[in-house]
Amino acid sequence: MEQVENKQVILKRYAVEAPKETDMEIKIGKVKLKAPKGSGAFLVKNLYLSCDPYMRGRMRDFHGSYISPFVPGQPIQGFGVAKVVDSDNPDFKPGDMVAGITGWEEYSLIDKTLQLRKIQPDSDIPLSYHVGLLGMPGFTAYAGFYEVCSPKKGEHVFVSAASGAVGQLVGQLAKLHGCYVVGSAGSSEKVDLLKNKLGFDEAFNYKEETDLDAALKRLNILDLILGVGLYMKFSISSELWAQSTITKGVYFPEGIDIYFDNVGGPMLDAALLNMRVHGRIAVCGMVSQHGFYDPQGIHNLYFMIPKRVRMQAFLQTDYLHKYAEFLDHVIRNYKEGKIVYVEDMNEGLESAPAAFVGLFSGKNVGKQVVCVAQE
Amino acid sequence: MEQVENKQVILKRYAVEAPKETDMEIKIGKVKLKAPKGSGAFLVKNLYLSCDPYMRGRMRDFHGSYISPFVPGQPIQGFGVAKVVDSDNPDFKPGDMVAGITGWEEYSLIDKTLQLRKIQPDSDIPLSYHVGLLGMPGFTAYAGFYEVCSPKKGEHVFVSAASGAVGQLVGQLAKLHGCYVVGSAGSSEKVDLLKNKLGFDEAFNYKEETDLDAALKRLNILDLILGVGLYMKFSISSELWAQSTITKGVYFPEGIDIYFDNVGGPMLDAALLNMRVHGRIAVCGMVSQHGFYDPQGIHNLYFMIPKRVRMQAFLQTDYLHKYAEFLDHVIRNYKEGKIVYVEDMNEGLESAPAAFVGLFSGKNVGKQVVCVAQE
Repeated sequence: MEQVENKQVILKRYAVEAPKETDMEIKIGKVKLKAPKGSGAFLVKNLYLSCDPYMRGRMRDFHGSYISPFVPGQPIQGFGVAKVVDSDNPDFKPGDMVAGITGWEEYSLIDKTLQLRKIQPDSDIPLSYHVGLLGMPGFTAYAGFYEVCSPKKGEHVFVSAASGAVGQLVGQLAKLHGCYVVGSAGSSEKVDLLKNKLGFDEAFNYKEETDLDAALKRLNILDLILGVGLYMKFSISSELWAQSTITKGVYFPEGIDIYFDNVGGPMLDAALLNMRVHGRIAVCGMVSQHGFYDPQGIHNLYFMIPKRVRMQAFLQTDYLHKYAEFLDHVIRNYKEGKIVYVEDMNEGLESAPAAFVGLFSGKNVGKQVVCVAQE
Repeated sequence: MEQVENKQVILKRYAVEAPKETDMEIKIGKVKLKAPKGSGAFLVKNLYLSCDPYMRGRMRDFHGSYISPFVPGQPIQGFGVAKVVDSDNPDFKPGDMVAGITGWEEYSLIDKTLQLRKIQPDSDIPLSYHVGLLGMPGFTAYAGFYEVCSPKKGEHVFVSAASGAVGQLVGQLAKLHGCYVVGSAGSSEKVDLLKNKLGFDEAFNYKEETDLDAALKRLNILDLILGVGLYMKFSISSELWAQSTITKGVYFPEGIDIYFDNVGGPMLDAALLNMRVHGRIAVCGMVSQHGFYDPQGIHNLYFMIPKRVRMQAFLQTDYLHKYAEFLDHVIRNYKEGKIVYVEDMNEGLESAPAAFVGLFSGKNVGKQVVCVAQE
């Protein structure tokens, strides 16, 4: 059996804080395009690879988490879309398209099919969406919003990292649910996307805000403009508040019902000051933190008490029984033009380390994907 | 109508950090022992006054909370047990006993009956229990444990400030529910109480622990003693762990299902490191913090994610529809000797400021009450 070259992204060493490109290296290996007899495995050609923030946890030498670390000297692993080349597994045959955990390399031998699914190519849906809109990030948005946030029509929803793989769908689901939705992001390009393409009611660039608390509230500025005191403001209708957008923005004059937290850190602290009674915070990721330990700390937890706030952390894997329902809901709305999805596509496996590292400085605009091969 | 002297505890000035005795002063006023005609009010003689940590919030010049601040120059207000002396309210007549919000003074004119209830003297139950076991703190324990913590039989429950007004009942309810219960407190006297009178499985003095995380876990020491590695420990039964209490204590080798948090701060941070999958944290109070803002900060929120922890803040006032059920449950168990209650009783109204201030250094052993008059 002939061997072919197999370009790979190898973990060189564990990352200490934020992952660096030099923690990874490109190597050229060799692979037989054959699944060993009796292995139950199948060999795939990788087409699209997903860069996801949770992978940082696997870059560390820490074994106490819900997922094991990568192995130095071995290829990085992550979600991908791939085409079966050869198979010793009766459920998968050559030509099948799959989405699930694969290696950061041209060809991978897959012997674990946990959360791996066969996908039907659909000319209306880009293949790469199976690691984004229709993959783990999309499902995280769906499960987090519907199962964790208990949303009600008309509620006020705040999403951080809102143009990211998860955030952009959370905001659109919330809009479809009849909520008022504001997103934060880290550049004016992303803010434009949120407002003009993704349908958020408002969006702001957190890097331009010196006071995140004020950014969420904008009460003081409005108090001055409208010339009203503390008491009067309670008798002003929300319509009037909504009209008075003379300032940079009026985001949550009446507070936040749902905060979908993708970042932790100072944004979480600011949101805690602005939650409404019985507000909910879905703790999805803490991408602002480079370690498990947050050196800056969260200082406003006290404010959960008067507002009876529920803060709920979750993993999408607890809700996999909802996956079919999710696909149905999102595909239908996507085909009706009610949901869009923004990807940031890098070309070539060698671009993967930079694409991954870029997640942690917010370089990507939309869901970060790496195209290894078109087919 | 003759006037009588009315000794009062007056708020002299708003407290800045922890309340001090000098923020209050004793004054002798005058009062007519008569409820004004047409006022709908009633005049009571105060018997027992309750010192509760939430009152610190009312000592501050901050109007944004769920309860308004005290008024400087006016008596402190709080829960108390009182006897009606004269009434212009048809629902209350002289001789009736009531429990609810009253003034820190010998006689009070009451015109608000929100969360005030008439009580039936019962020779088996000390009158003062109506501001403790059967009052707001007891109900906080009941609502917090049953409605917020969603307890299941056999779960592992940790309670901080465990000998306090709320904590001591949480622990006993958890034991009655079939849970394993550990409490923390701030003196060896309190630890003795927890273990020998209140029926906790284990208790420890947090002031003697240099590493709260290790105190909750005690895994490393046990690993050494038992000579087992990381993997073997999962195959050791909980019985064996429970037997191996050669060290200072084996509190949560398998982690915490429910943390009933009365203190916030470093104990919350340590608990976050030791939660089990789908663990719940009831945020009841943050008595360790002297301000709304926690300058030290909470650093371990990340750990909520792999364990999918729910952190829920609450106020007992949201559950008042359960009050009758609560009274029934607690009175029945108390009369059957299955629940006990520890009070710290100060004698005389002039002792109230010191008693209240003592809460914040943990001076009280059990629920802090001030006896103004026996009848």
